[in-house]
Amino acid sequence: MQPSVAERRPQSFDRVLSSMCTEPHPAARRAAERFLAANPGDPATYETIAALEEDTVAALAEITGLADAVGGEGAGGHADGADRGDDGPAAHGYVTSGGTESNIQAVRSARERADTDDPVVVAPESAHFSFHKAASVLGVDLRTVTTDGDGRADVDAVAAALDDDAALVVAVAGSTEYGRVDPVPALADLAVDAGVPLHVDAAWGGFHLPFSGHEWGFEVDGVDTVTIDPHKVGRAAVPAGGLLARDPAALDALAVDTPYLETASQASLTGTRSGAGVASAAAAADALWPDGYRAEYERASGLAEWVADELRDRGLRVVDPELPLVAFDLPSATFEALRERGWRLSRTGAGEARVVVMPHVTRASLSSFLDDVDDLL
Amino acid sequence: MQPSVAERRPQSFDRVLSSMCTEPHPAARRAAERFLAANPGDPATYETIAALEEDTVAALAEITGLADAVGGEGAGGHADGADRGDDGPAAHGYVTSGGTESNIQAVRSARERADTDDPVVVAPESAHFSFHKAASVLGVDLRTVTTDGDGRADVDAVAAALDDDAALVVAVAGSTEYGRVDPVPALADLAVDAGVPLHVDAAWGGFHLPFSGHEWGFEVDGVDTVTIDPHKVGRAAVPAGGLLARDPAALDALAVDTPYLETASQASLTGTRSGAGVASAAAAADALWPDGYRAEYERASGLAEWVADELRDRGLRVVDPELPLVAFDLPSATFEALRERGWRLSRTGAGEARVVVMPHVTRASLSSFLDDVDDLL
Repeated sequence: MQPSVAERRPQSFDRVLSSMCTEPHPAARRAAERFLAANPGDPATYETIAALEEDTVAALAEITGLADAVGGEGAGGHADGADRGDDGPAAHGYVTSGGTESNIQAVRSARERADTDDPVVVAPESAHFSFHKAASVLGVDLRTVTTDGDGRADVDAVAAALDDDAALVVAVAGSTEYGRVDPVPALADLAVDAGVPLHVDAAWGGFHLPFSGHEWGFEVDGVDTVTIDPHKVGRAAVPAGGLLARDPAALDALAVDTPYLETASQASLTGTRSGAGVASAAAAADALWPDGYRAEYERASGLAEWVADELRDRGLRVVDPELPLVAFDLPSATFEALRERGWRLSRTGAGEARVVVMPHVTRASLSSFLDDVDDLL
Repeated sequence: MQPSVAERRPQSFDRVLSSMCTEPHPAARRAAERFLAANPGDPATYETIAALEEDTVAALAEITGLADAVGGEGAGGHADGADRGDDGPAAHGYVTSGGTESNIQAVRSARERADTDDPVVVAPESAHFSFHKAASVLGVDLRTVTTDGDGRADVDAVAAALDDDAALVVAVAGSTEYGRVDPVPALADLAVDAGVPLHVDAAWGGFHLPFSGHEWGFEVDGVDTVTIDPHKVGRAAVPAGGLLARDPAALDALAVDTPYLETASQASLTGTRSGAGVASAAAAADALWPDGYRAEYERASGLAEWVADELRDRGLRVVDPELPLVAFDLPSATFEALRERGWRLSRTGAGEARVVVMPHVTRASLSSFLDDVDDLL
């Protein structure tokens, strides 16, 4: 007989190496539990969570360089357009349900602002599958271009793909398969020259990149929108994604009128939204930005280098990690046997095994994993 | 100085009369807290929550009449298409982020299956604003038709709006403004005759309607998809919506390939999804279906009738409640003064005040509200 709902427990994270989700920070968990029943989608009813969303967006604006780019004041804001008077803060972002929503919304905003009937999104083939979903949902063409052989967007290929129908260029800052960071400044130059916005998908990478030395955020001219997910490396509870925009007009393009809410419009893709996600994102940023996130970047990067070396020592081909994500060749039978031992591993499109060094992944768990690899190879 | 995140608390629900969200059931809250860090969007990594999603879909299939319509077996299933072999359960639904996602997805599925280049969605003007959002996102035309004077879809007006481009008819079963239930069987007949699917939006009403005597769900031939939100009257934690489909092909039309997940495709609009929402929906249904939901329907309906009578006794015009939602005329100054006293009230498009008798709304809180009305009128 099946156990009852009350008896069932989630898996431990001890053997989860495939996921870009993780255990929330303890302060984030407490905040999520407090705000489980608040709806940031209805800010006139749930005022405290609406204020916490402004805090979260303000923190994300610092992390992505938006606060510096537009001035520290005014970066706060949320998906409710009603407070956007001359007196209120400009709304430069909102807390989404995750990277997929953020990417769909970035494409949607570009579509709305494009001066063509057949808008095309130009993205490297390394872009997350949510861009395929966005294209399908939104009825735009996704033109994917080859990468440079090391998993980063090929700038010349992107340039060649731009034409009068181009409505958006996508750059990936921390790719899902290899953790690669595209050359954002070069792509931004292309986008500016072509007169189209550049969207940076830093859903996973965004909380590492302030410390890695990359140029990736709003400090780069031409970056129009950024996806950054608190519920990944930001250690918020699911669901907490982020969409940030340099120009409030990018969000205004998404607004739909809202009768029977005491606010005039709504820019989010979903309606009711998670108070747990918003409150936990605010709490995590409050606890961890910047020192805690920096420490995690350094810890995870060190572990990624270490496990990459260990795998190489075993004669396996390893893709050099750029951010804390290690892809490596593993015989298919070994992969399956590791999964049977409870390791949660996944594969790249090319078939490599992926280990994402998330906050819950420790040296102890990776040592145990390597022991099992040794046992099975 | 602002209080810290850790010091901030959500509003009490004591004075929340405007929201269709509510306090989760205690068992749902406990389940949400346990599964805060699980992602049903990645079922090969998070297997327990994937199983709980199947339980939730099976419960929603019973509540909406789908289990009876297609046979009790096979109604379970989730948004991951990979388990849909000959051996696995047919996937008839999944847990969405809420009614807006469910409605967008129903429209998207109809668009994908329509035999026209200019798909039109025909909906009563009482349809939720998420259908306007869906039309904007998906690039379909929304053709809204007048209601019958009492807030229900006018069947003749819907018939007149159907043409060769019609891709979907929408029926509302529990409207957001007045709690009205459209004549679903008559609309289904029209839809069947026109060869288009019928979508029933029971986001709010769905947990009341099994007890109200209406014909509204899959027991009505021609009903193709249903929106029903556990995080409203179902007493799950946000975010937990539901999309149910009679024919798995309706969900297959939404599937997008998923590289680097150990499952082949994903039909949900979002990517990462909330384990808290899914687990709490399963726990709430386990605790409350059917007796607890029936008791809540009876309690809330009785309260709605009572407060409607009380308001009429004060000389106010009241819209007769059909489900537990009371709209009534209130001078604008009184409305504003009540909001200043902390009452969370909202208005219909026509300007009436709305009281939604949710599980957290008690006779005591409504008495206190009436005292304040007396004081201010």
